[in-house]
Amino acid sequence: MKLLEERILKDGKVLPGEILKVGSFLNHLIDSRLLDEIGKEISKLFAGYEINKVLTLEASGIPMACAAAHYIDCPVLFAKKSKTANISENCYSSLVHSYTHGNDNNIMVEKDFLTKDDKVLVIDDFLANGAALTGLIDLVNQAGAELVGCCAAIEKGYQGGGDKLRAKGIKVESLAIIDKMTDTEVIFRK
Amino acid sequence: MKLLEERILKDGKVLPGEILKVGSFLNHLIDSRLLDEIGKEISKLFAGYEINKVLTLEASGIPMACAAAHYIDCPVLFAKKSKTANISENCYSSLVHSYTHGNDNNIMVEKDFLTKDDKVLVIDDFLANGAALTGLIDLVNQAGAELVGCCAAIEKGYQGGGDKLRAKGIKVESLAIIDKMTDTEVIFRK
Repeated sequence: MKLLEERILKDGKVLPGEILKVGSFLNHLIDSRLLDEIGKEISKLFAGYEINKVLTLEASGIPMACAAAHYIDCPVLFAKKSKTANISENCYSSLVHSYTHGNDNNIMVEKDFLTKDDKVLVIDDFLANGAALTGLIDLVNQAGAELVGCCAAIEKGYQGGGDKLRAKGIKVESLAIIDKMTDTEVIFRK
Repeated sequence: MKLLEERILKDGKVLPGEILKVGSFLNHLIDSRLLDEIGKEISKLFAGYEINKVLTLEASGIPMACAAAHYIDCPVLFAKKSKTANISENCYSSLVHSYTHGNDNNIMVEKDFLTKDDKVLVIDDFLANGAALTGLIDLVNQAGAELVGCCAAIEKGYQGGGDKLRAKGIKVESLAIIDKMTDTEVIFRK
């Protein structure tokens, strides 16, 4: 997605530890117009797949999942990272390591909200080693739902998580795939 | 907002501890069409206020903040509940007690993303004792930004947090205000 690649080059910042910071437009402060274009683009990439649910992980996957679900015209379900008083005991859960938070989270969705009748698109803001998407796919499988595919805004192609999922036959679409990243340059996959 | 009140009566569940569960359409599984109507309604309630930023708190405030920001046509900033590798040290922060999580969170936004030039609408899904909104308002004040007002999807009117903020002269709009809630009925403020 040219608009996103251009924005990454313009406003993204590379921090030590190969962290690409896009907090000024994608996952802390969020550009609503860009978000809308991202939603449109995702709905085009998965047109015709009869998706009836978008699944993401709190918190930074939620904006683009909502934007995509708006254009796909289906509900959004977001997996939670901690048990709250308003969630039932009856959950599917999966253990996911978070690179940016530096911790493990038992992500969960209520069983009532993810069922074998669902055709699910899994969305997250970043795809690096694939830990978050793998956890979300695990939830889809536990529910006996159909996984239509996965979509990330930004894939760190050189970390291999996306290609590993593709090698399993999963349709993985990333709006910008970074093949190389140094302190001074970001190179996208053609 | 009639549509939201009707949906609460139809699909909301009252759990022990006066918890209103709306996870089937508002803050776990999210009805995209309802979310869009919520965004439209908020933009109408705050039309003419020249809002240039919507501020919310992760995670469940994010969907409606994004929907409102779409119609207001401005960016969304969401306060984070924990320090991540991609957030700078340079943050405004405020301590907030979460009723549904049963813990305290030091909520934070990067100083670069909230400034004295901002006219801010603060949004959250629930307003009960007002702890989350008060924390978000604290961030707005620390930045020297202008608080335009606050908006919640559901206000538990009988807990008094909303009226306390209104008594301070803050414009607080809630889309559905509950004046009484028992195991068998939910009564909205006229």
